[in-house]
Formats: sequence, structure tokens, C-alpha cells
Amino acid sequence: MQTLDTLSQTQNVLGVGINALLKEAGVAKASLYDHFGSKEALIVAWLDQQQIRWFGYFDAHVAAKAGLGEPARELDAAFSFLEAWLARDDFAGCPFLTTYLQLRSADHPAGLRARQYSDRLYAFFRSRLHALGVSNSRELATSYLELFLGAIVVQQLGSGTRAARSARRTARALLEGAV
Amino acid sequence: MQTLDTLSQTQNVLGVGINALLKEAGVAKASLYDHFGSKEALIVAWLDQQQIRWFGYFDAHVAAKAGLGEPARELDAAFSFLEAWLARDDFAGCPFLTTYLQLRSADHPAGLRARQYSDRLYAFFRSRLHALGVSNSRELATSYLELFLGAIVVQQLGSGTRAARSARRTARALLEGAV
Repeated sequence: MQTLDTLSQTQNVLGVGINALLKEAGVAKASLYDHFGSKEALIVAWLDQQQIRWFGYFDAHVAAKAGLGEPARELDAAFSFLEAWLARDDFAGCPFLTTYLQLRSADHPAGLRARQYSDRLYAFFRSRLHALGVSNSRELATSYLELFLGAIVVQQLGSGTRAARSARRTARALLEGAV
Repeated sequence: MQTLDTLSQTQNVLGVGINALLKEAGVAKASLYDHFGSKEALIVAWLDQQQIRWFGYFDAHVAAKAGLGEPARELDAAFSFLEAWLARDDFAGCPFLTTYLQLRSADHPAGLRARQYSDRLYAFFRSRLHALGVSNSRELATSYLELFLGAIVVQQLGSGTRAARSARRTARALLEGAV
């Protein structure tokens, strides 16, 4: 799937024609359909793999920065992960967000993957804020998610100043005000 | 251009083939090229029109909610505009964000429009925060932009709870902590 990764760096995943995909992957159409059944199934398989990989990095980073029972450190670690990710030379946006915004349909199986991704991030923020005794943990977790996903978009657009760092400091200030 | 608006509600703008555009618009290819020169030029013209319209609504809303020299009210009005926009039945995401994330290229003229949009929003936040004497106005303006654009994305994904309302209340809390 490395070739599909490469392709997605430079092109709109869903806008890529099946023939370009096959050429890039160096396989015959019959062989692709044998494996995945359709181009959509291939994209979904790629998103699933991306999601496992992404949360693998995320979870490992959080575990390295915070001990068990340290929800405030875990929250901060989520944003230091964001800082490290957005600073990478090969940062090319979030594959789930990009795919979802291209689809504009919640029913598409690839769209479902984007929701799984943001739901999982939301649950991460919510459970830590709840553990810290924050009373409006649902609302604050929503704003944490907005800062996190918003920083990805702001970084891509190039507006403002140091997107992930701003999000991290703002998240800290919000927590100080809430507990 | 009404027909292109309709099309963009349901489809990936840049993924739409030129023939589908022509069929929807009910014009001949020669006539389209006479007017715009290319499909890309047509999309850019549509984004320019959308931007004028969007900021027309935004500026009118802010002016109705806040008097001159009331920057705190103006900031809050930006988020009450967001609440009203995201609650609309026909809300279908932000055309600038969606187009930009499809492109993944800063050099495309349509990508430039997305940057103009977010730069203008950032300048709005920054000038009001500066007028209020906030010391870290650049950083806070970046987080305001993250909350604003993040709420659009979170609303589309359907994660969390009442995206625009959370962003509005968080923006207020940030300002109380900063002044």
C-alpha cells in the first residue's frame, strides 16, 4: 500500500482514477478486484490501515509522555503529538478529514472511517476531562476536538501563527480555567 | 451560477467533470470557454462570488450585533454567526475549506482563495483581540480561527456536541481569561 500512500500525498484520493491507481501500484485491474472488489473498497482498506497506524503513533506518544492516572498530562501529550506531527516535512494533512470533505456524504464507507477517527479523538478528550472532574466535559471535549482538527486545517492553509502550539497553549489555559 | 451552487452541495467541486458542469449549467462548451477560459477559471469565479457573499452575510451580522468600538461583542457575534450558519438546513460545509483540502496545493488559484478567506477571518480576530489589549493576540487569534474552522469540520463529521455553541462559549472563556 506504500504506493497508494505516495499517491495520496500529491493527489485527491477519491479523484484518482482507477487506472492511475493501478499504474502506480503496478498491478493489473483483475488482480486489484480479486483483492478488494472495487476502488472504494481499496480506499476504505487504506483508511483502515492509516487509522491503525495513526492511533498507534498517537497512543505510544501519549503513553511515553504521561503515566497511568495522569489525565492532565495525557491531554497535553495529545497536543504535543499534534505539534510533532504538523512540524514533519512530510505532513500533508489528515487523510480522514480530506477524504470526508471530498465525499460530503455520511453514508459512504470511507466517510464512516472519518467519523470513527474523530469520535475516537473526542472520546479520548472526554474521558480525560471527565476524570479531572470538569463539569462541562462534553462541551469542553468538543472544543478540544475543534482546536485539534482546526489546527490541522489552519496549518494547511498557512494562516495565523504556529497552529499546533497555539492549540496546545489554549487547551492548557482552558483546563486551568475549568478545574 | 446558481446551478454550480446546486452542484457543489452534492458533489466534490473539483471532481466534477467539465461535461457534467456544462450539462448542469445548460450551456455549450464553446460558450463556457468564451466566458471563463477553463474549468479552473470557472471554479475560481464561483469561489470569488461565494467569498463576497459569505463576508457580506458575516459583516452584516457582526454590524447588527455590535456597535462601533465594541470589539468583545464583535468577537462574540462572529461565533453567533457561526451558530446560525451551522444550524441551517442547507449547511453543506465551507466551500473554501473543501476546495482547498481537495487541492492539496497552495499554488492553485482556487487554493489562494481559501487562504484569502482564512487570512481575512484571522485578521478579524487579531484586530479585535489587539484592540482589547490582549498581549498574545496573534496566538489567541490563531486559536479563535482553529475553533471557528474546527467547528465547521466537527459539525460535518457529527462528533461531539453542538459544535458552534461549544466554540462560542470557549471563545468567550478564553477572552475572559486573557483580558
